[in-house]
Amino acid sequence: MRDAYLAGAAQTDFGSFPDESYRSLFRTAFERASESVPNGLDADDVDEAVVGTLGVGGRQLGLSGPATTEHVGLHGVPTTRVENACAASGYAVRQAVQAVRSGMADVVLAGGVEIMTDASGDATKYWLGVSGETEWERLSGTTFAGVYAQMADAHMAEYGTTSEQLSHVSVKNHRNGASNPHAQLGFECSLDDAESAQTVADPLTLYHCCPTSDGAAAAVVVSEDVVGEYTDDPIRIAGVGAASDAVGLFQRDSYTGIEASRRAAETAYDRAGLGPEDVDFAEVHDCFAIAEILAYEDLGFCEPGEGGDLVASGATALDGDLPVNPSGGLKSKGHPIGATGAGQVAEVFKQLSGEAGDRQVEDATRALTHNVGGSGGAAVVHLFERESGVEA
Amino acid sequence: MRDAYLAGAAQTDFGSFPDESYRSLFRTAFERASESVPNGLDADDVDEAVVGTLGVGGRQLGLSGPATTEHVGLHGVPTTRVENACAASGYAVRQAVQAVRSGMADVVLAGGVEIMTDASGDATKYWLGVSGETEWERLSGTTFAGVYAQMADAHMAEYGTTSEQLSHVSVKNHRNGASNPHAQLGFECSLDDAESAQTVADPLTLYHCCPTSDGAAAAVVVSEDVVGEYTDDPIRIAGVGAASDAVGLFQRDSYTGIEASRRAAETAYDRAGLGPEDVDFAEVHDCFAIAEILAYEDLGFCEPGEGGDLVASGATALDGDLPVNPSGGLKSKGHPIGATGAGQVAEVFKQLSGEAGDRQVEDATRALTHNVGGSGGAAVVHLFERESGVEA
Repeated sequence: MRDAYLAGAAQTDFGSFPDESYRSLFRTAFERASESVPNGLDADDVDEAVVGTLGVGGRQLGLSGPATTEHVGLHGVPTTRVENACAASGYAVRQAVQAVRSGMADVVLAGGVEIMTDASGDATKYWLGVSGETEWERLSGTTFAGVYAQMADAHMAEYGTTSEQLSHVSVKNHRNGASNPHAQLGFECSLDDAESAQTVADPLTLYHCCPTSDGAAAAVVVSEDVVGEYTDDPIRIAGVGAASDAVGLFQRDSYTGIEASRRAAETAYDRAGLGPEDVDFAEVHDCFAIAEILAYEDLGFCEPGEGGDLVASGATALDGDLPVNPSGGLKSKGHPIGATGAGQVAEVFKQLSGEAGDRQVEDATRALTHNVGGSGGAAVVHLFERESGVEA
Repeated sequence: MRDAYLAGAAQTDFGSFPDESYRSLFRTAFERASESVPNGLDADDVDEAVVGTLGVGGRQLGLSGPATTEHVGLHGVPTTRVENACAASGYAVRQAVQAVRSGMADVVLAGGVEIMTDASGDATKYWLGVSGETEWERLSGTTFAGVYAQMADAHMAEYGTTSEQLSHVSVKNHRNGASNPHAQLGFECSLDDAESAQTVADPLTLYHCCPTSDGAAAAVVVSEDVVGEYTDDPIRIAGVGAASDAVGLFQRDSYTGIEASRRAAETAYDRAGLGPEDVDFAEVHDCFAIAEILAYEDLGFCEPGEGGDLVASGATALDGDLPVNPSGGLKSKGHPIGATGAGQVAEVFKQLSGEAGDRQVEDATRALTHNVGGSGGAAVVHLFERESGVEA
């Protein structure tokens, strides 16, 4: 099967944009992604498109894929909407890889978009709630903050993880995000800010929770047969893994890890012939601070129970051994559901192209993205490798 | 790239099932699809799953893929929900083909499910409406019946197509559906019944419109490397094509054909090295009677403008030269949005396996499925070939 390459990727600013629509946001992401391709990309080059969205706030529930891509000048190409809650566009990128490897497309646009901030509080809760397990979790009143709070509680009880360790995630990600012009909450916060903020769902404070966001992101995935037309510095998608799990947390054996993340990572590492020790930096799904700590453990960056120590040690800071979320992550950059997975890929492209400015990870050749749907009902992991870096 | 094969497929009854959930319906479809595989299929064999649904009536909008597959015993496998309105599970089957051809999976479950009948009239209109173009069509009050009525009007004006020809579609499909135990409206109707029924959206009468339905369907797509484990009588997925178009009818150049269907068919025929003359029977997207007439023309079964004559001639009846919708089609069998595309594939599997009973198409070797999203914002066409039939 043919290898797939990342030829370009970009995102809009994430934030609250009352003057934008899902179409205008996606158009900006597409235009920037096209411009990010070293040798350029025309809309006519695109063979296929995959759009991840939870539902663009209810505006266009059906056919939101074609409704999005028609607005960016993709006329007639097969366009599929995919949805796996917060992992929607991570799965869109994976589907683009399958399309390329299948031989059915050479140039695939994979992106995502969400509008969240113009809904009322209740509507936002509804739209988020319907990504949780409906019959038991949502109808019993649980929110996502509540579900992740249960995971934090369990991790604290089993491993002695502390609130301060959770706050270290927030401090690190806000510090990184302060250097990211696309970040919604692009300001630094102190350990005390995070610790003393109001409680959202005990033990999670406001600073342990990502915001709701509007935004879009897009990636250009191409086949090995055409990658030379688009770039002289190819980034190979070295491995892809995905897995599902019971959608309701209460139906899982463990609250102290996300089994879908573990399985997705294992598959991605296997396919790439790489391990966690080969990863130079990672963009992981930190919807809540505990989620980044779980990600460290599930992705093999440390042993189970050691995630809290890892972040507190500074190892995952921008100047640490394994920088995590140099973009600021969902916490600081923002989390427009359907755009998040492709947004992670946009950061990887920028970093591996050496264009991340003040938040550049030095000597980065290999990167990992990790995108989770719901509280772990779905997860998808990609490994990227800049080939010139490997040969050097 | 590896070829993909259809190892099995089945559906639930389509109809109104107040005692069923989207999960229980999909489970029935999965169990029947597993049993339909000649050498059997265990849930553990499945590497990946793709679920098409518009949104199961709003019950589980996010993660409805994993929420569906966890209930049928698929634990941990990558599960993606895809949505292209009424073409959702046609695209699910296409994605299964890509997954197999990509080398990333050997056995893929592709299916779909929808619950529609327990919503109130207004809710149903909302759920259907949000598959139309929202900003101009839905918010101006147009329904799908209204959009297809405009197409019928245009076809009548340009080609002289008559109401009676539309009614011939209904009479034929009800006759076929009367032999299908899964059909929601499994009774015959006369030309006079169809002509004299109340008008829904002029010129379309009640008998020119498909019902709203609950139901599920599932197909098992496998690679050429493992097909021999599952069947001694392989059905190859010889060609796949898909295309998008402007979601709003008002933005298209022509109302007398569906450009996405034409492009999807052209791609599928090209990939298969086949033409319309090679097709022994077809399951086409007859959400409204005019849609079947457009399908004849868009798929190359006749010239533009000749579709009305074709159905009136009897050529597409079960005993005609090219039987269309032997299952009864959306009109008689029913149209549970997300299940329809996979339901067409279920009929193809039954027919090519020689197990369609009273509605069996004689000597059928090659079949086509045609699934449309919305009023033509998306379309997907598959060509199937029973290999033993070709060799004989």
